[in-house]
Amino acid sequence: MRKGTLYMIPTTLGGETTSDIIPEDVKKQATELRHFIVEDLKSARRFLRKLDRTFPIDESTFFVLNKRTDIGEIYAFLKPAIEGHSIGVMSDAGCPGVADPGASVASIAHEKNIPVKPLVGPSSILMALMGSGFSGQNFTFHGYLPKERKDRIGAIKKFEGDCFRTGTTHIFMDTPFRNMNVLDDMLNNLTDPTLVCIASNITLPTESIMTMTVKEWRKHAYDLAKKPTMFLIGKRQ
Amino acid sequence: MRKGTLYMIPTTLGGETTSDIIPEDVKKQATELRHFIVEDLKSARRFLRKLDRTFPIDESTFFVLNKRTDIGEIYAFLKPAIEGHSIGVMSDAGCPGVADPGASVASIAHEKNIPVKPLVGPSSILMALMGSGFSGQNFTFHGYLPKERKDRIGAIKKFEGDCFRTGTTHIFMDTPFRNMNVLDDMLNNLTDPTLVCIASNITLPTESIMTMTVKEWRKHAYDLAKKPTMFLIGKRQ
Repeated sequence: MRKGTLYMIPTTLGGETTSDIIPEDVKKQATELRHFIVEDLKSARRFLRKLDRTFPIDESTFFVLNKRTDIGEIYAFLKPAIEGHSIGVMSDAGCPGVADPGASVASIAHEKNIPVKPLVGPSSILMALMGSGFSGQNFTFHGYLPKERKDRIGAIKKFEGDCFRTGTTHIFMDTPFRNMNVLDDMLNNLTDPTLVCIASNITLPTESIMTMTVKEWRKHAYDLAKKPTMFLIGKRQ
Repeated sequence: MRKGTLYMIPTTLGGETTSDIIPEDVKKQATELRHFIVEDLKSARRFLRKLDRTFPIDESTFFVLNKRTDIGEIYAFLKPAIEGHSIGVMSDAGCPGVADPGASVASIAHEKNIPVKPLVGPSSILMALMGSGFSGQNFTFHGYLPKERKDRIGAIKKFEGDCFRTGTTHIFMDTPFRNMNVLDDMLNNLTDPTLVCIASNITLPTESIMTMTVKEWRKHAYDLAKKPTMFLIGKRQ
């Protein structure tokens, strides 16, 4: 029997409308599926209803995948694909498989020879990079910074040093309630001419992407509390 | 006077239809513009006509930005934005500002306080990562590998070592005519259990994304010649 495909379906980053961020054919593809592996049940259902108000939630199967999901369960989640049904993977925001548990599903799909197909949608990492003006020829995404202040400052200074030596762009983030601590640590520990880009609320009407030197940032009062934010250290092109 | 916005507009990666990869509102946004900074004039015009068959090419201004463009010229390209007209930046394929000269335009826009707004579209780097099953919590894009075989092998082995130690996913590419050399170098120099993902022709009907160990790849006859390809070394999730 021909196997189903595992579709990696990007979702919204916040409250934006889907026509801003999801291509027409991706909508069609996503709403044709009846099997889903999702990070958050409520947001996945809401997203599908946003794509199509008549989407038959009750006729669809949803498996929940999060940090607590056992690897053994993921094999069971993929059973419909082995039986010929395509499956959609959705994160609670943005592109599945990038900074969420979705990658483990794709990994096991490859092991089982289930075709994996990523669909087009918003990625705050990539959009921050596009908007920063920094080099995209070489870049590293570090995910979340260390929680301990000393380690966080160490990490930030290491990124600055590497950027200075190699020109690599460094991208990182933290949980929104720690954003102001990250900003303080950057402004107190990086050197004046280092360029920093701060990209907040990407794709939302309140989006803000600004690149300035550390010296200039110090003159700005800037509120990042609760805003999903990407921090970048890079070189002027 | 209120400045125009610099829109970073993703284009197609190959011959795919725009409804697959460009959200509806991005189409609207792009076709409302009359000022463009583009990597390739012909492909930019073709793309706009694909978005809207009646797009008024002759009433629009196109500046060409490529590796030979002088930085001084870019300041002139941005003059319409200072005069209140929004400008679109387009690469010859995919997301501008990621692995093309577009980043320098965004960089100068920030310097001139011109708002920079990235739009949603396909990125072969990100889609390869989404499809690979590898960690997206930490990843590095290295751009093109070194041309010299010895240096190329050195780079590939360094990525493998780092992935083994830190779990970071390494993404790299080469000019399509060298793809088979890269594959040979990987299969001859990496260790059996190392996982390699090869993602070719992303978003095209001939798309192929496969993740296997080096040992398994060695058993495969695989033709990558002339296919735009991303190579990834990563860890099973």
